[in-house]
Amino acid sequence: MTRILGIDPGSQRTGIGIIDVDAAGRARYVHHVPLVLLGEGDFAQRLKRLLHGLAALIEEYRPDEVAIEQVFVGKSADSALKLGQARGAAISAVVLHDLPVHEYAAKEIKLALVGKGSADKVQVQHMVGVMLNLKGKLQADAADALAVAITHAHVRTTAQRLGVNTKQAWSRK
Amino acid sequence: MTRILGIDPGSQRTGIGIIDVDAAGRARYVHHVPLVLLGEGDFAQRLKRLLHGLAALIEEYRPDEVAIEQVFVGKSADSALKLGQARGAAISAVVLHDLPVHEYAAKEIKLALVGKGSADKVQVQHMVGVMLNLKGKLQADAADALAVAITHAHVRTTAQRLGVNTKQAWSRK
Repeated sequence: MTRILGIDPGSQRTGIGIIDVDAAGRARYVHHVPLVLLGEGDFAQRLKRLLHGLAALIEEYRPDEVAIEQVFVGKSADSALKLGQARGAAISAVVLHDLPVHEYAAKEIKLALVGKGSADKVQVQHMVGVMLNLKGKLQADAADALAVAITHAHVRTTAQRLGVNTKQAWSRK
Repeated sequence: MTRILGIDPGSQRTGIGIIDVDAAGRARYVHHVPLVLLGEGDFAQRLKRLLHGLAALIEEYRPDEVAIEQVFVGKSADSALKLGQARGAAISAVVLHDLPVHEYAAKEIKLALVGKGSADKVQVQHMVGVMLNLKGKLQADAADALAVAITHAHVRTTAQRLGVNTKQAWSRK
């Protein structure tokens, strides 16, 4: 059994989704939670809450591997900077726990969940619910965090069948 | 005596400059070093080196306060994201050590060092050398890191004279 923690970084809230995957590649839902970056305090204090919040989740759930969405940046350099800072703090929490981080582009996530890279977000979110056998509607950031975790589960299971090292095959510069 | 660590975040190298300030506001050079983000490994590994490198400096030099430059983002959202990630990791290292972080815009740094907000970078770098009594040319990232530390030294000395709390007056959202 391998436990995977998925991260959907955002400048206002970062989604966290945790799943377990068995040797056959079957995924089971474990937990999901949003880490909210808004609220009291200055920017550094909010980043600290994200860092400590994620560190506490890692210590409680002890994932074996971490998957993070390669964020899409729009036209605004200012919001890209904010998103980058949140993503940098999230990766910091992960690497401080010496966990391997795997990055996936939105296209790869859509391909893994829906079977085509051009699928829309609603289809991806629907498939997360179906695959993890969840009742009710998930919040978008929770669904996206679980989706990147499922994507990594698929990739690592396929890679193991083919005898490929996922770390080398899938971690990016 | 107050020890201030200044950070000039960059997506390729982050400058670190450390100074000591006495009660009269006089600054003394202590150390400077670039933390290079390029090199071996994937992005997460490079971020980890930045995080551990800065943590090691904090543990060795034990600064009382930290000042960081409010980065200027150009037109490219992609480079803003990279810069944001480096800045997020640097702030993470600082807040993990429970140190207060103060942010200063480029304009405030120019005003503090040269006396006018429209000064160019070369003038700022020259003044860093003069104020800290350093012989020879400093690298740009080292000079910028020392410049933001000097700016904070000026602001906190002035604030103390006026009986203002620097944390509230100068930390930003």
